Amino acid sequence: MTNWIYPEFDFQPRRPLFMVVMSNTAVGKIPGLSAAGTTPDLTFYTPGADAELVETNRIMTMPELPETPGGSPTPAILTRAALTLAKIPSLFVSSGLEKKPAVPFVDLGGLPGRDIRESPAVPDASAIFERGVILGNKVSLLSDCVFIGETIAGGTTTALAVLKALGYDLNVSSSFATNPTELKENVAAEGLLRAGIGKGDLRTDPMRAIAEVGDPMMPAVLGLLRGLTTPAGPRIVLAGGTQMAAILAMAHSMGIDGDISIATTRYVAEDRSAHFIELVKSLNRPYYIADPGLERSKLPPVQTFAQGYVKEGVGAGGAVLAASLYGVSQQQIVEETDRVLMTVKLPHV
Amino acid sequence: MTNWIYPEFDFQPRRPLFMVVMSNTAVGKIPGLSAAGTTPDLTFYTPGADAELVETNRIMTMPELPETPGGSPTPAILTRAALTLAKIPSLFVSSGLEKKPAVPFVDLGGLPGRDIRESPAVPDASAIFERGVILGNKVSLLSDCVFIGETIAGGTTTALAVLKALGYDLNVSSSFATNPTELKENVAAEGLLRAGIGKGDLRTDPMRAIAEVGDPMMPAVLGLLRGLTTPAGPRIVLAGGTQMAAILAMAHSMGIDGDISIATTRYVAEDRSAHFIELVKSLNRPYYIADPGLERSKLPPVQTFAQGYVKEGVGAGGAVLAASLYGVSQQQIVEETDRVLMTVKLPHV
Repeated sequence: MTNWIYPEFDFQPRRPLFMVVMSNTAVGKIPGLSAAGTTPDLTFYTPGADAELVETNRIMTMPELPETPGGSPTPAILTRAALTLAKIPSLFVSSGLEKKPAVPFVDLGGLPGRDIRESPAVPDASAIFERGVILGNKVSLLSDCVFIGETIAGGTTTALAVLKALGYDLNVSSSFATNPTELKENVAAEGLLRAGIGKGDLRTDPMRAIAEVGDPMMPAVLGLLRGLTTPAGPRIVLAGGTQMAAILAMAHSMGIDGDISIATTRYVAEDRSAHFIELVKSLNRPYYIADPGLERSKLPPVQTFAQGYVKEGVGAGGAVLAASLYGVSQQQIVEETDRVLMTVKLPHV
Repeated sequence: MTNWIYPEFDFQPRRPLFMVVMSNTAVGKIPGLSAAGTTPDLTFYTPGADAELVETNRIMTMPELPETPGGSPTPAILTRAALTLAKIPSLFVSSGLEKKPAVPFVDLGGLPGRDIRESPAVPDASAIFERGVILGNKVSLLSDCVFIGETIAGGTTTALAVLKALGYDLNVSSSFATNPTELKENVAAEGLLRAGIGKGDLRTDPMRAIAEVGDPMMPAVLGLLRGLTTPAGPRIVLAGGTQMAAILAMAHSMGIDGDISIATTRYVAEDRSAHFIELVKSLNRPYYIADPGLERSKLPPVQTFAQGYVKEGVGAGGAVLAASLYGVSQQQIVEETDRVLMTVKLPHV
């Protein structure tokens, strides 16, 4: 049907639901690590603002549109464009989120993740996981195809640290065009050293790896996966790049099995500094690549996505895949993404 | 099929969802007004504890089981029994809730309702309503039959005040066996006097009536109704007594129309101190009465329900109706309600 989604997704959902887990981690405030905010302190507001943008195309609780220090806008504009065109409902979920959005969201509680270099990062990981299971169970009775994205600044670094604790030695992606790989490696290494965890030590205990060097998004998504993978449950598509690939690795280690695949953008899949495809292939999970075609955008800030800035987030790749299942064309995605950025309402500050 | 649900509900839901709106109002702390807590201060914890009980059969954020000063347990035990037997998913929603539960819930924000005698009660009613619309719209795409209950201590008094502002002169029900009608009338009258509202003055402006003398549950449920009543939307059953009947009156005045009915327990319908049936009939809405049969309980605290204590709450009547649609018998409801009360886990305090 389309040549911009690869391979074709062979299922037509009737009651899709697009979930996005919002979390904060102090790792996101380490200067130079995350581009999800013009300053490190603003990164804590980005998840809530992403929710407001997707739900209402209006930013309420952040003084500006979430964007990179270089001026690339949040990928939430792409997620909103795709979901709006396809009329797919979204459901934002908070886990360890300090700055709450002014739109409806499911609260899973939890504390913001701490700096992995200084202390255990997510001591309440098990409680978050259990609440995720409860929510996943409910959703499994309502939807036949659940997409799960994330918005958390600093999340690729915690993903890197957990992957190392599980024995993987792979690079993760970045919202910067030039991946600050060395800084991420150093932060992850410091966290693992503090916790006394060697490479592969927690191969069979990802929940402990999360508690020590992960972030609050992880136990929430894993809990959702556990709760959603019932015998008559829905298809599940993780919507994200290397962070969600890391979740797949954790789920694998925890024996969470079922109809779980992963979808991301072409921009992540083609990122030579990261190992998305390698990791997913090693886990034998199906993956889908969506090409949003944003090089054809009329707006330079949106064109930067096609130049390797931002790349993914807020489930953008999965949202584009989902929209394609409802007859939305790549050109419509491009035009609607431009329209979202042109019309988004910002607070008067 | 059954003679304990009257009349028969002529629709078999395939993807039912049982929503419960949790709110706090300072009116619930007026001594002698609400029996939803052993002391007035504890009433603020009751909604969150009800959510924990229904979701997990465990109380986490309240020092004791929510119960009346006389020892009747929360009707949440009946709601949990019914939903568990029928495997119907619940979704708790907070609106103006100060004491949050330790289980997943949708947060609609808002401030707790203020004492209507002292100041405007719900100044943020419009914002809550708008968030309710957003949530209702989502749910309309997932469920084919949505039940909406409430848990708010003091809610029948604010319902009385809003009904008067809308021009109705009817009594409301009570969680006490002997309805403190005079106290409620006085509080409602004081609130209306403070706000300068005469009987019927706000016949065409229920949102202003809520803002002045209502509570935060009201705009949330009305927003849900607005968002759910789409052309291809689900059946909607308000689950509650005179409070939900008051919501029907407000919805009527706001022109919210659609497949909306109401279900309650026999204990409310037979309460001669309240005018449930009269109000619903005057609005031309279908109503359903469920008889939980709790006089056959083996536990004296549960038997008190059949003696006119508690009567309704947390959507208990609607939950019993919903369970009956899945082959659950009245005897099963009685036995499971007893089992819930015998097995509920309380905090070690």
